[in-house]
Amino acid sequence: MLERFQDGRPRHEALDGAGVRRLAREGRLAGQTSGLAPGYVQGNLVILPQEAASDFLRFCQRNPKPCPVIGTSEPGSPHIPALGADLDLRTDVPLYRVWRDGVLAEEPTDLTDLWRPDLVAFVLGCSFSFEEALIADGLEIRNVSCGVNVPMFRTTSPCEPAGPFSGPLVVTMRPFKAADAIRAIQITSRFPSVHGAPVHLGRPDLIGIRDLARPDYGDPVPVHEDEVPVFWACGVTPQAALEAARLPFAITHAPGCMVVTDLKNSRLAVL
Amino acid sequence: MLERFQDGRPRHEALDGAGVRRLAREGRLAGQTSGLAPGYVQGNLVILPQEAASDFLRFCQRNPKPCPVIGTSEPGSPHIPALGADLDLRTDVPLYRVWRDGVLAEEPTDLTDLWRPDLVAFVLGCSFSFEEALIADGLEIRNVSCGVNVPMFRTTSPCEPAGPFSGPLVVTMRPFKAADAIRAIQITSRFPSVHGAPVHLGRPDLIGIRDLARPDYGDPVPVHEDEVPVFWACGVTPQAALEAARLPFAITHAPGCMVVTDLKNSRLAVL
Repeated sequence: MLERFQDGRPRHEALDGAGVRRLAREGRLAGQTSGLAPGYVQGNLVILPQEAASDFLRFCQRNPKPCPVIGTSEPGSPHIPALGADLDLRTDVPLYRVWRDGVLAEEPTDLTDLWRPDLVAFVLGCSFSFEEALIADGLEIRNVSCGVNVPMFRTTSPCEPAGPFSGPLVVTMRPFKAADAIRAIQITSRFPSVHGAPVHLGRPDLIGIRDLARPDYGDPVPVHEDEVPVFWACGVTPQAALEAARLPFAITHAPGCMVVTDLKNSRLAVL
Repeated sequence: MLERFQDGRPRHEALDGAGVRRLAREGRLAGQTSGLAPGYVQGNLVILPQEAASDFLRFCQRNPKPCPVIGTSEPGSPHIPALGADLDLRTDVPLYRVWRDGVLAEEPTDLTDLWRPDLVAFVLGCSFSFEEALIADGLEIRNVSCGVNVPMFRTTSPCEPAGPFSGPLVVTMRPFKAADAIRAIQITSRFPSVHGAPVHLGRPDLIGIRDLARPDYGDPVPVHEDEVPVFWACGVTPQAALEAARLPFAITHAPGCMVVTDLKNSRLAVL
């Protein structure tokens, strides 16, 4: 399914955002998008019936660090032209999750048969964008160098609720030496639409995390003796709020299988 | 000597930079300048014979975080018009220190009799400017709320040497809760000419500090159980390098008795 260059690299490594979407649309990519279309913004997907959409948007507005909205569709439309000229949210994400009454019901690769005229789509910024900026600056991202998913933790900080949506702030953790942590704060501060500056650093217990080696989602990564754990707001926060809301019907991307856009990561920098 | 308003505030609290300089020049102020002329940049003063000046300037260029040069005089001139239209460095600092062979020789309030045609003056940015920005943002600066001098520590990080000038990086320490530490990093990053972003945070031992309660200069401040110590490069670094160089002759300001300029602190922000 994956074509490869002669040196073994997957051929679609060199694709742009539209190229990755095309692979997904043609049924040739049903897995993670991490590392594909370097330089292009990838986002979290939430699709809801219109009756729940305004509460969800209000939830995002009240919790902008974990829930940075970078695109919304017109009701009934699977397109968000501002994120991709030909973007079709029914087909362009490699793998979806369909939720019924808050329970995972199926994991389709295509939403064509499930689409309804009352659905509204939201795309939320994701930390892939700022990880790329950190790596470009020479910083080591532990989950990237270990080749695992970033460790994520439910904190004891509650989100501001809106309608049926509520729940704890979920954070990602990346360890750095102090000087690199300071640099990482400077760099991610430039990217408010993909979670921005960290929300915490240092002692995990102060935000209700008992054991860094046991994340609630993702994989653990080693934290060296001279490193400080740095915590960013995480896009799993709205997904957890969505699950807790137990809506009759909702659709999200499957973890790691993101909406790949035509926006460049560098264009998200506010400065 | 200090005139006061009816409510007890010192009258010169409301002075501008030129007003504070005039008080010093007229012999009516021989103490600390902290809190005077709010909004105006205050700086560290170093005056050297021309033969040592280029080595010192090279030292500052190689160590810009502890030694941010914001003004230099022409050789023989006690004026730096860019810092203050009427600034006269022989009279406008409340209290000076004269060093002979690296030893403190005297603390005059006026340099008129000591001035020589081979002297060159340097003014270096100081953390008063960024402390004002932090306080304006609502952060608590522990040394300010305790009414003491900021605690300063010699680290085990050596400066880049230049000619006779060398020595350890000296840092100031201010404790914050993690979220405030992150905000303080953002704010001070905008002020590279007054030490800029912190150089370290968290464990003091990683930069050679054994006991936060025993600073090498200044006063200790309490660090609460849920706070992280944050360390900034400090203007005492060049003063320590100057002492170590044991020059036959040098002049500095006395601690806390700064050069008060006509520049506004807000104008030092790069963004």
